[in-house]
Amino acid sequence: MTQLQSVAWHDGGVYVLDQRRLPHQEVVNRYITVADVAESIRSMQVRGAPAIGCTAAYGMALVAVYGQGTTGADLLGALADARRVLDASRPTAVNLFWATRRMYDYAVTQQQLPRAEFAAVLIAEAQAIFAEDVAMCRAIGVHGEPLIPARGRVLTHCNAGGLATAGYGTALGPIYRAHELGRAVHVYVDETRPYLQGARLTAFELQRAGVPLTLITDNMAAYFMGRGLVDCIIVGADRIAANGDVANKIGTYGLAVLAHAHGIPMYVAAPTSTIDMRIADGSMIPIEERSSDEVTMVAGVRLAPEGVTAAHPAFDVTPARLIHGIICEKGVLTAPYAVSLAQVMG
Amino acid sequence: MTQLQSVAWHDGGVYVLDQRRLPHQEVVNRYITVADVAESIRSMQVRGAPAIGCTAAYGMALVAVYGQGTTGADLLGALADARRVLDASRPTAVNLFWATRRMYDYAVTQQQLPRAEFAAVLIAEAQAIFAEDVAMCRAIGVHGEPLIPARGRVLTHCNAGGLATAGYGTALGPIYRAHELGRAVHVYVDETRPYLQGARLTAFELQRAGVPLTLITDNMAAYFMGRGLVDCIIVGADRIAANGDVANKIGTYGLAVLAHAHGIPMYVAAPTSTIDMRIADGSMIPIEERSSDEVTMVAGVRLAPEGVTAAHPAFDVTPARLIHGIICEKGVLTAPYAVSLAQVMG
Repeated sequence: MTQLQSVAWHDGGVYVLDQRRLPHQEVVNRYITVADVAESIRSMQVRGAPAIGCTAAYGMALVAVYGQGTTGADLLGALADARRVLDASRPTAVNLFWATRRMYDYAVTQQQLPRAEFAAVLIAEAQAIFAEDVAMCRAIGVHGEPLIPARGRVLTHCNAGGLATAGYGTALGPIYRAHELGRAVHVYVDETRPYLQGARLTAFELQRAGVPLTLITDNMAAYFMGRGLVDCIIVGADRIAANGDVANKIGTYGLAVLAHAHGIPMYVAAPTSTIDMRIADGSMIPIEERSSDEVTMVAGVRLAPEGVTAAHPAFDVTPARLIHGIICEKGVLTAPYAVSLAQVMG
Repeated sequence: MTQLQSVAWHDGGVYVLDQRRLPHQEVVNRYITVADVAESIRSMQVRGAPAIGCTAAYGMALVAVYGQGTTGADLLGALADARRVLDASRPTAVNLFWATRRMYDYAVTQQQLPRAEFAAVLIAEAQAIFAEDVAMCRAIGVHGEPLIPARGRVLTHCNAGGLATAGYGTALGPIYRAHELGRAVHVYVDETRPYLQGARLTAFELQRAGVPLTLITDNMAAYFMGRGLVDCIIVGADRIAANGDVANKIGTYGLAVLAHAHGIPMYVAAPTSTIDMRIADGSMIPIEERSSDEVTMVAGVRLAPEGVTAAHPAFDVTPARLIHGIICEKGVLTAPYAVSLAQVMG
């Protein structure tokens, strides 16, 4: 499978693939400041909860490389500042906060190290987060593949593929795995307005991987469900509450209601870093409200009349009762999620 | 209310507002051949079931004006040809076939007339269809307005407004009526991918009429329903079967399932010319499959990668059991629709 890398660390710089320009242009930007890395997350050059987490971890590593000081301890203040800046870039995906916390907590344990070694171990820790993400996606693929029914017609929303992660993907993991095993799979790809991650990114990476797909507008999903052409739905997640409620890209909740009405199983695929046990239920997950212009304009062209305002909640919350299983790197969790999530989170 | 006219007859020509260019440009084209009128329907310069019917009626009148012959009888062959051409322009909306049949049947009864008088009465008949459509929309407004709950938050899909009709609109009729009565109304406008009739047309005409609105992507509808912000849904129809099943713009069926799950009433507003008693149920309504390019490209910009194919069913069928009422010019029909539709259709 030929796959583009969403984010990478090389030679003291964070390399971010500008996904806003896909599928037409493959532009990679190099950043060496925390502000630029945070802006690349805010502006959605890089998006997808796991990929954001990896990017933020590399952003923390930049402080260790370029900050002032003779030991790690001298850099802890700058790292705390970087953590605040990165955490403020987007509010919904918990992997971001998970990654910056892990980096900061690790830095505290290594603060006695001289500057050069401190930088080296922080880079290594960020690389470990990246490598673990790839491994988690592979594991999600292995655990999730058997859930895809024999006819293999899967509907997905947004992009929870290789571009949303360090590689391979969460929701697309089971699909890639089934394809690798030679199974027949066919993916209905929601275009995913307003940002069109499905049309631009999921269609792009499935096409590269040779997985058959049909692109649909979001409002066609019910039509294909009603015709018996969808065997299951797999989506990613930006945050999972302790009771199993799932925040994910706007439109996920509607899909879950439609799937329930049609008796189609709906699965959420996400690494355990997406699970936020401090959030009791979905009502407490902050939902990012993005710009109206991202709805009223497409590719620089204004669609709606001047003066018309659009709503733009970027995410919604799907209640746990509509989710047939949560596929994580440790296996497939099922209801009651309060129990299964607590078990897997130790 | 300042309103643009979708189609008009003046001085021996059919004037069609090119809705593809709205909201940015207001271009009106004059046509004097049946082929051009049919193409204006096929290419969606004019769209919306009632507006298509009016346009086709004017197309039939063109034959009486420009065809060869000395009496009406000499023109019946050309009228039959014109009817075939117009009927072939789009397959789903029944108002088209209703209007051409009415014009043809009327022409047969007037065939003894000399050419000039024959042309005059056929033009008058097409004008009558137009005037009746305006009156029907007004009546739909009057009958439908009391169905809008006190808080007045209505969600609509596609454009079933003044632009989809001879004026005033079907689904928007009750909304305009409530607004005229000084009631508080707020419309959630589905942008309605892929053709964006909601963003381009419904937002445009509601804005002109001073009706408060919020534009949303189609996949946000469930989000706002789940938050209790939608009091009812009103949509138009392209064809209503004898059992009450309704064909309408793709996405309508999904909305109906979502409304049902949230306990929100869903109404269909359409003149009786949209009711097709020869169709027993929705499974027999032909669904137009349009070009993949209309999904993969927006405003001339390609969104999806080259080589990716999109599905494009232009309509879907909502089963009668999900519809709380059908608002027509004669009143509000309710289940069982097999009975209420048969009564109203006499």
